[in-house]
Amino acid sequence: MSQRTVFFVSDQTGVTAETMGHSLLTQFEGLSFRTVTLPFISSVARAVEAREQINAATAADGLPAIVFSTLIQEDLRDEVKASTAVFLDFFDAFLGALESALGVLSSHAAGRAHGMANAEVYAARINATNFALANDDGGHTRDYDKADVILVGVSRSGKTPTCLYMALQYGVHAANYPLTEDDLESVRLPSILATHRQKLYGLTIEPERLRQIRNERRPDSRYASAQQVAFEVRQAEALFRRMSIPFLDTTHCSVEEIGSRIVHSAGIQRRLHP
Amino acid sequence: MSQRTVFFVSDQTGVTAETMGHSLLTQFEGLSFRTVTLPFISSVARAVEAREQINAATAADGLPAIVFSTLIQEDLRDEVKASTAVFLDFFDAFLGALESALGVLSSHAAGRAHGMANAEVYAARINATNFALANDDGGHTRDYDKADVILVGVSRSGKTPTCLYMALQYGVHAANYPLTEDDLESVRLPSILATHRQKLYGLTIEPERLRQIRNERRPDSRYASAQQVAFEVRQAEALFRRMSIPFLDTTHCSVEEIGSRIVHSAGIQRRLHP
Repeated sequence: MSQRTVFFVSDQTGVTAETMGHSLLTQFEGLSFRTVTLPFISSVARAVEAREQINAATAADGLPAIVFSTLIQEDLRDEVKASTAVFLDFFDAFLGALESALGVLSSHAAGRAHGMANAEVYAARINATNFALANDDGGHTRDYDKADVILVGVSRSGKTPTCLYMALQYGVHAANYPLTEDDLESVRLPSILATHRQKLYGLTIEPERLRQIRNERRPDSRYASAQQVAFEVRQAEALFRRMSIPFLDTTHCSVEEIGSRIVHSAGIQRRLHP
Repeated sequence: MSQRTVFFVSDQTGVTAETMGHSLLTQFEGLSFRTVTLPFISSVARAVEAREQINAATAADGLPAIVFSTLIQEDLRDEVKASTAVFLDFFDAFLGALESALGVLSSHAAGRAHGMANAEVYAARINATNFALANDDGGHTRDYDKADVILVGVSRSGKTPTCLYMALQYGVHAANYPLTEDDLESVRLPSILATHRQKLYGLTIEPERLRQIRNERRPDSRYASAQQVAFEVRQAEALFRRMSIPFLDTTHCSVEEIGSRIVHSAGIQRRLHP
């Protein structure tokens, strides 16, 4: 069976078109698509090239391609819309309604969403990223008073990517601390964490999944043994419960979901807003 | 003048609703909005609470709130839609058109876009994040043969956040190397970089902006002096030109834009697709 091609077409990065298209396509389980992003379509010549590429995909697949477009300039949009694809137009769907609601016309200017760097936004993200890097893996604990949240959990429970995601997406200053054998055996918090108990958020994970992840890293080690991971996860969860630390099971969660759930449920103030 | 409140309402993380709303609102320059994300609205009770919060904002502002919704279940959607806000419904706008085009009905199931972790996607992101961290700041150069791209540039030109963003968004294995005084004075690549010249991508930045960024970090230092940053930027750009290394000025770019431009213009194979 032929596979259909999906295009994400944008005058900028394509991030919005990809996000929009991905959300919609995941509603069609069982179908698979070939995806192509065409970013920076910012001239008529490039729009014509994009159209030709789209038409070629329709012809090769024997099925009309699907285009998710966030093109804002009408002349570029018209060129791509004239393709043989099904054209789903993000701005066309909402801009009119929004103009009526707000009682003003929009600027119809390209490249505003991700293109223009605002110096403040830039600084907030960079500072948050630097904070996450400097306070990764318990290496540095002196800045915990400046942390918005401190993630705790066993090794490979998802702490580092979650901290980095929260930094980039929300500008949140997130530190992380891996629980040690001592912490786990005693079911006690080290004093540096006890001092900041209100900022702690636990991550846990199903032992079998953790075993797989660790085994990829250090095959057939004690670190990756079923017994060791079961012990660590059991003790970590006991510690979270004993100290009333909120915690989240990351086994079936994406990094976006973990980050969003923590920020939301812990009531963390974002430093970056949409 | 009263400020209008904008809500991003989702049964999951709210990432799609925020992205969609942000793209649209940036088309209305000069207007400012108060934004509120209501994620994980996954029961009728929570939908009713959301509606009450929205109605309270309309009443307080004296202007109808704007709701960007990615709710997929009809019963939840109906509760929120009954609010006093202008309701912009992401799925309603596109799902019908997509069902017709594909000739199948969608599953109308919540939480697919960012909620379900696919073990492969998870592994690709984690591996890419670990790669970026292990190969940050020139600290470790042995894995350059496994890199998809190696960013080069002077200190604080945006290399680290760009590598982390490319890892999380595209699963790309990105290393970065800060050009040293020696490299800059000699206008030569160190041998480890010369070996991998095809993978290099340069970042540059306007000297005045670099001076500001460095000055926040180390006020009144030689490192942050106008003379030093001008020298470094001039030499780095001369090096990029001499070695035919493609490069990008990050001064007016967001992290998304830098990452997207590099992946696109260097023809890097993404390991994560939308």
